Amino acid sequence: MRIVVLVGGIGGARFLEGVRRLPAEVTAIVNTGDDLTLHGLRICPDLDSVMYTLGGGADPERGWGRAGETWTVRDELAAYDAEGRWFSLGDKDIATHLMRTRMTDAGYPLSAVTEALCARWKPGVRLLPMSDDRVETHVVVDGDSGPQAIHFQEWWVRHRGELPARRFVFTGAAQARPAPGVTEAVAAADVVLLAPSNPVVSIAPILAVPGVREAVRATAAPVVGVSPIIGGAPVRGMADKCLAALDVPVTAQGVGRMYGSRRDDGVLDGWLVDDEDAQTTVDGVAVSAGPLWMSSPEATEAMVRRGLDLVGITA
Amino acid sequence: MRIVVLVGGIGGARFLEGVRRLPAEVTAIVNTGDDLTLHGLRICPDLDSVMYTLGGGADPERGWGRAGETWTVRDELAAYDAEGRWFSLGDKDIATHLMRTRMTDAGYPLSAVTEALCARWKPGVRLLPMSDDRVETHVVVDGDSGPQAIHFQEWWVRHRGELPARRFVFTGAAQARPAPGVTEAVAAADVVLLAPSNPVVSIAPILAVPGVREAVRATAAPVVGVSPIIGGAPVRGMADKCLAALDVPVTAQGVGRMYGSRRDDGVLDGWLVDDEDAQTTVDGVAVSAGPLWMSSPEATEAMVRRGLDLVGITA
Repeated sequence: MRIVVLVGGIGGARFLEGVRRLPAEVTAIVNTGDDLTLHGLRICPDLDSVMYTLGGGADPERGWGRAGETWTVRDELAAYDAEGRWFSLGDKDIATHLMRTRMTDAGYPLSAVTEALCARWKPGVRLLPMSDDRVETHVVVDGDSGPQAIHFQEWWVRHRGELPARRFVFTGAAQARPAPGVTEAVAAADVVLLAPSNPVVSIAPILAVPGVREAVRATAAPVVGVSPIIGGAPVRGMADKCLAALDVPVTAQGVGRMYGSRRDDGVLDGWLVDDEDAQTTVDGVAVSAGPLWMSSPEATEAMVRRGLDLVGITA
Repeated sequence: MRIVVLVGGIGGARFLEGVRRLPAEVTAIVNTGDDLTLHGLRICPDLDSVMYTLGGGADPERGWGRAGETWTVRDELAAYDAEGRWFSLGDKDIATHLMRTRMTDAGYPLSAVTEALCARWKPGVRLLPMSDDRVETHVVVDGDSGPQAIHFQEWWVRHRGELPARRFVFTGAAQARPAPGVTEAVAAADVVLLAPSNPVVSIAPILAVPGVREAVRATAAPVVGVSPIIGGAPVRGMADKCLAALDVPVTAQGVGRMYGSRRDDGVLDGWLVDDEDAQTTVDGVAVSAGPLWMSSPEATEAMVRRGLDLVGITA
């Protein structure tokens, strides 16, 4: 069985820990809209979160970055009064960024770099960046003299999402092409899953790459989404603040309807919600309720199996 | 009083610790022929050795790099099986290289970058790279299929200087220009000193930048060199192996004669040798013997004062 999953960072990584327990060939198409360059280093937070988590190198307590991380470089950059210190980079993490930056500077596409890094991490799933082209999620906020677009990471990490977001812009998306293998994987899939990642800034940028949304809508495989909202609040992260900017209700139903049915112009055949949200309905989409908390890979696996059941697939 | 010193790395740094004790404005013109790019980082070993040592951040035991250094990034690069691991980069050191690389990538010349880094280190002397242009010292060694040129650091660090050196080539030197302030400082100096750095791979590259040797020969100030050889052996480093490649005797006299007198086509007015080498003579150069071991900044200061005495200058 071939499973394709559209994912963001940490929540996506947790989700994949469950998905990869199934007897299937798993391809993860990872958001790169959060990527940024700091201190000359090319940083791919979502790809790295997935790679570190599935490779057994992530910090389970902090939820991001590497286990046993040290912070010497960060402290030294502070001594130099370097800019960009709002984004904490650990020493172990920096080695990854040095490898990536050197390879991209040498002309390798991000997909090839990701494959090379995964030779060490062996995540057990194929990781594909959504695109080898640069796409950056920008957040339009109120500046001193009118609307101002800032990088998503600046909004998210530096301002902790506290500046009201007016809208999100996927800069470069219109010119981007899906990375090699992305649309092919979607077309050849037996099932496509949307992880319970942030729908606005993790899943939407992937679908914004021309050809990806079309491939998801055209594939013969059923498409099942998992709600990132449980009982009116995000499972983790700040999806609520992002949804508010789009006037989307912060509910499983709100997000399900935002994704919409493939019978209309949406991307879903099935929508998995938590027991708390059992009343959810989305026109043209099969909805199933069950526990959505990803408390362990086993719990997540059970959740994924319920998603497959919903569209008549048995793993 | 204005003192200009031509220096290499660690030995040069020790020398400057003595020079800066004098009541003088000190400008150090630093060799950049050892510079290299590794893991995408621009590394200037001599500039950093001088900056860290004079700024109180150098490791006194190891003799290079930072005190209290950690090695997380290096170990991670090893886990990625990265190339170029023969050159050990500490985490603290890497922060310096990240700052430098980002600034040079943004278009700042090395002299401006050095000044910016020194805002933190406050070395107490003005540090000028010999050139803002890229000059690389290459070592011609015997390869499997004839002579082969390798980067000086590869010869020095990776092969520990054990491959017989046929000759040294300062790649890029012919096209390089002295960094802003270099020839001006030499012209305006009250005395010019050649530190007891490696004459072949530290001092010679500086003099190989068109205009520098000419400025040293033309300045109204006396030029005093300090022998890097005591009793037939280098004070530190591998000057002996470098001198052998040039068929220069590994003696205070051999190096003094290699530099030569300004009255002929050389660069020296005075030559300071150790008591052990009191028999040294160099045509047209005033030679003075005394203790040359830089056992403390105070001892080095006394040595420098003897050098100034030799050419009739009182500090």
